[in-house]
Amino acid sequence: MRIYVDNAATTKMSPTAINAMLPYMSETYGNPSSLHSVGQAANEALADARSRVAGVLGCDAREIIFTSGGSEADNQAILSAARLGERRGKRHIISTAFEHHAVLHTLQKLEKEGFSVTLLDVHENGLVTAEQVADVIREDTCLVTIMYANNEIGTIQPIAEIGALCRQRGVLFHTDAVQAVGHLPINVREQNIDLLSFSGHKFRGPKGVGVLYARRGVALTNVIEGGAQEWGKRAGTENIPAIMGMAAALEEASAHRSESGKRLSVLRDRLIEGLSQIPHSAVNGDTRSRLPGNVNFCFEGIEGESLLLLLDDKGICASSGSACTSGSLDPSHVLLAIGRPHEVAHGSLRLSLGEENTAEEVEYIIAAVTEVVAYLRSISPVWRELESGRKEFMLK
Amino acid sequence: MRIYVDNAATTKMSPTAINAMLPYMSETYGNPSSLHSVGQAANEALADARSRVAGVLGCDAREIIFTSGGSEADNQAILSAARLGERRGKRHIISTAFEHHAVLHTLQKLEKEGFSVTLLDVHENGLVTAEQVADVIREDTCLVTIMYANNEIGTIQPIAEIGALCRQRGVLFHTDAVQAVGHLPINVREQNIDLLSFSGHKFRGPKGVGVLYARRGVALTNVIEGGAQEWGKRAGTENIPAIMGMAAALEEASAHRSESGKRLSVLRDRLIEGLSQIPHSAVNGDTRSRLPGNVNFCFEGIEGESLLLLLDDKGICASSGSACTSGSLDPSHVLLAIGRPHEVAHGSLRLSLGEENTAEEVEYIIAAVTEVVAYLRSISPVWRELESGRKEFMLK
Repeated sequence: MRIYVDNAATTKMSPTAINAMLPYMSETYGNPSSLHSVGQAANEALADARSRVAGVLGCDAREIIFTSGGSEADNQAILSAARLGERRGKRHIISTAFEHHAVLHTLQKLEKEGFSVTLLDVHENGLVTAEQVADVIREDTCLVTIMYANNEIGTIQPIAEIGALCRQRGVLFHTDAVQAVGHLPINVREQNIDLLSFSGHKFRGPKGVGVLYARRGVALTNVIEGGAQEWGKRAGTENIPAIMGMAAALEEASAHRSESGKRLSVLRDRLIEGLSQIPHSAVNGDTRSRLPGNVNFCFEGIEGESLLLLLDDKGICASSGSACTSGSLDPSHVLLAIGRPHEVAHGSLRLSLGEENTAEEVEYIIAAVTEVVAYLRSISPVWRELESGRKEFMLK
Repeated sequence: MRIYVDNAATTKMSPTAINAMLPYMSETYGNPSSLHSVGQAANEALADARSRVAGVLGCDAREIIFTSGGSEADNQAILSAARLGERRGKRHIISTAFEHHAVLHTLQKLEKEGFSVTLLDVHENGLVTAEQVADVIREDTCLVTIMYANNEIGTIQPIAEIGALCRQRGVLFHTDAVQAVGHLPINVREQNIDLLSFSGHKFRGPKGVGVLYARRGVALTNVIEGGAQEWGKRAGTENIPAIMGMAAALEEASAHRSESGKRLSVLRDRLIEGLSQIPHSAVNGDTRSRLPGNVNFCFEGIEGESLLLLLDDKGICASSGSACTSGSLDPSHVLLAIGRPHEVAHGSLRLSLGEENTAEEVEYIIAAVTEVVAYLRSISPVWRELESGRKEFMLK
């Protein structure tokens, strides 16, 4: 038995997406830049995918750039806004302390170049507000970049409000929507988004492909130089099979989004309810303004890594936080940002539900986590200190 | 009927490569950074692919970075060498006039930063020599970047000699091997290569994946910032299906390289012989130091684009030069670099043979090209001027 609840790390591809890819590997396999019929058929597929993706986002096809994934799209969005800003003497960027590293590390690179970056504190419920942005926006602010939904704790930021504020103040607004697209409502016009990035493999599409939406008029800077693909803004032969797979998966996820969101929210809320019964535990992040499939807990007195390995023995595939940083021994920067102390942040568990998870699985997970946490505490020296009163509990 | 002779633009995927991808889409679909069993199975696949690719190149697995393709790998190789160079006050780079735009445009970006770039002239046979490099190498040269085989005319550069010279002079050597890998012998140690880039889709592997080999000790600069994938040198969830497909295609191409090269050379030589019968035509580039599958001709008095469209009507998928610049009306920079005049460069045809092409197809192509060239000349005002002696022929 295998229960996969790590859908925020990556998803199993949907059969629809796989089937949408295959013809472009061995039949319509041409290079879209080639003038002959095989190339032109690939080029027509590319145009079709572009307009379908634009349809889902509520923008024009001309505003869509295909990239190799969410990280590349985040890099390009931020670098582009920075280059536009510095031409007008604006070198200040606003973001938050709990962005994905694709955003934070790009900002660090810009800081080394002399940009000034303000990272907003995140409230302990995992949210930032438009007011916080308003408080720190300056004459020389060229970009606000704030994620739509956090990749670890799933909290949903007030993107439309922040977008409206930025539009009013004449500042570009980028949102890393890697965890949101396919799962949350999106309309870049209504939400006043200038730049938005996402990845195909978070909604049952293929890995190795992503999208950068850039509002008409926002000039992009290349991350990859070379051929004239993507209007000269992203070099490299277009990955047509992956682009077709992503477009199919995006349409599929969007069509079922509302219904699927309702179903997953019920499972999520039951998981939160069940795991809350474990003493000295706490859910991380707001429980309402939250991705339908995201559950994230801290359990005091244990190590997240041991918890994961024992859950894996019971057939449960979960994570402690972001997969992208799982090699690191540091606690999650997201959990530290919402004020969890180091010791508590180490004992974290992220369960990210997907299409295939069931109510029975949720009950199994609750029982398994409860049992494993109890076992790990029984052999934990830290727990002994907590129980004996030599150390103080931090969670209820 | 369809005869695809545009394999330098992209190839039809081999069934082996497709089958190597599929299990990683819907079974072993985990994120290799995840600690659970599905993630770790993906991570093992990644390690396996890395060591198989390293085996083909003759290097260590640790020296392989997976990228989104050849262009990204070219960008990263050149930027990395430039950053290493400037730390030691070395800001001079040597390349050639007929590199791919992924190289030339990256060099232009560095020139804007103050780097000095020497582009070697290319001999009319489409070759550069190690002596030419020796003549311009300087104390402040930090990088020599010269392609292994040209993407338009297929000429093979003396990589090992240039590598030996660079090693002796303490200068990093990068080669864009996008057209070479899978088709020509390669051993990065024996050929003294420090940095090498290639793409999966030029040898019947998938699009959207490539490799940057960087010799141990050559520190890389990120093109994409973010998560800690690829030893922190290339962020973004690893594209396991594509990486597995590429590794399988590379092993397959390498295993049959020698035999396939012999077969294609025979077809190539017959094509060159047959097309040479067309009056006022010329093969572009040396006919011996040449990719086994590459044929490139100029026909005086016609436009390459018209030729392509009429050949397409006859079921032949060919190109005029690089697919990456096919939208442009400028003649090929490669043909200009080997000294073809503008008017002649406009009438170019590239036929790039692949695994599926046959001797019968070659005969059909010779007949079709001969017929179409004659037809286009019969309606060409330029040809009338040439025939009447009002203009002088440039090709024999």
